[in-house]
Amino acid sequence: MTETTETTGAAVVAVGQNDHGDPAGEHDGPHGYASDKTGYLKRMRRIEGQVRGIARMIDEDVYCIDVLTQVSAVTKALQAVSLALVEDHLGHCVVDAAKESDEAGAAKVREASEAIARLVRM
Amino acid sequence: MTETTETTGAAVVAVGQNDHGDPAGEHDGPHGYASDKTGYLKRMRRIEGQVRGIARMIDEDVYCIDVLTQVSAVTKALQAVSLALVEDHLGHCVVDAAKESDEAGAAKVREASEAIARLVRM
Amino acid sequence: MTETTETTGAAVVAVGQNDHGDPAGEHDGPHGYASDKTGYLKRMRRIEGQVRGIARMIDEDVYCIDVLTQVSAVTKALQAVSLALVEDHLGHCVVDAAKESDEAGAAKVREASEAIARLVRM
Amino acid sequence: MTETTETTGAAVVAVGQNDHGDPAGEHDGPHGYASDKTGYLKRMRRIEGQVRGIARMIDEDVYCIDVLTQVSAVTKALQAVSLALVEDHLGHCVVDAAKESDEAGAAKVREASEAIARLVRM
Repeated sequence: MTETTETTGAAVVAVGQNDHGDPAGEHDGPHGYASDKTGYLKRMRRIEGQVRGIARMIDEDVYCIDVLTQVSAVTKALQAVSLALVEDHLGHCVVDAAKESDEAGAAKVREASEAIARLVRM
Repeated sequence: MTETTETTGAAVVAVGQNDHGDPAGEHDGPHGYASDKTGYLKRMRRIEGQVRGIARMIDEDVYCIDVLTQVSAVTKALQAVSLALVEDHLGHCVVDAAKESDEAGAAKVREASEAIARLVRM
Repeated sequence: MTETTETTGAAVVAVGQNDHGDPAGEHDGPHGYASDKTGYLKRMRRIEGQVRGIARMIDEDVYCIDVLTQVSAVTKALQAVSLALVEDHLGHCVVDAAKESDEAGAAKVREASEAIARLVRM
Repeated sequence: MTETTETTGAAVVAVGQNDHGDPAGEHDGPHGYASDKTGYLKRMRRIEGQVRGIARMIDEDVYCIDVLTQVSAVTKALQAVSLALVEDHLGHCVVDAAKESDEAGAAKVREASEAIARLVRM
């Protein structure tokens, strides 16, 4: 496989890193998910395989409802990843910031709440 | 790339096809999404690239909130695919069944409603 | 009961009826939910009581998480009503339109799909 | 006001308070939402009026899709209340616990994450 979709993926990643104007280095420490990086990577590989499976179902003209069931399953798997990331983030980044200072804590709570809202309002 | 996740994907597909006890051939005709198969395949390839992009973000220790934002974006893209599949399904399979007979229509409505519930209750 | 919230409710209702430019009378027939109007009214009364219960919880300083649990339960109850309305709508209005003509069927499918999207994208 | 739905509401409230085995008094302090109790009560009253408005729409045979639109609007309003409660909870209860001790912080993060999961998995 020649990784033709690599470009799309890369473009997406590019958006992520510094678009909230943080001074370089602010998020340098180990992140909330650091303790289970392998677990997260495994889940993402599995989801990637499921997405590829859906493309194959469409290509082989599988019945709409069965495709839909599978799309729902993958969406659910992604939401489970999101919820795990939120919990790890609250337990590490937010808790650490709260211990550091009131301002740091408040800023992290604000940021986490916005991410949770994006999750719920999907 | 040696496609190590192929197995997972294939297993997933296997579940899809005949687990609702339909007599062989019932869903043989062109499906709701048939008219835009290329479009759907393109969307799935794009989503696959985005999922791979998220794995890379995690691997490169990108900040949790940025990973979360990207997971939300992919979840949204999958839900858009689901909604398009539902619309195509209603417009073809359900409408065709309704014209065929009351029983056929009712059965398809039931089935579609269950799929919509899985989508909403995610 | 002095119905102080009556105004809000009434304003809301006013929005509903003719904002999609339908010629008067188009939706005059019995609606999808007509066969179980009593059931729907009962569910809405129950939800109204639950909403009032949440206000009381807040007024009595009940713990945040318990209030949240109850808000989630009511949201779920509302979504169940939505899903039932969608199923009744597909089974009556959409099926009837499909039998009437291709154009009528397509228009109803479009409209139903938009309502389903609002449900999913909440 | 004859409060015929009072029983339902009260039953619901009863579930909330002590079903997580907390020793009496643990959640006695001012809660996350305490600083804007009036705002929350106002929002709940408004939602109660909207729920009553939907019952009226059904009673007056308003078109299904218009009822659905209104149910979606109320669901959205309830989700906005949930998100505000989560943010207030994180900003007060979770932050305070984090400053108190690692165990207290971890317990609150766990509890908040479960509430967020109920919100997302609706």
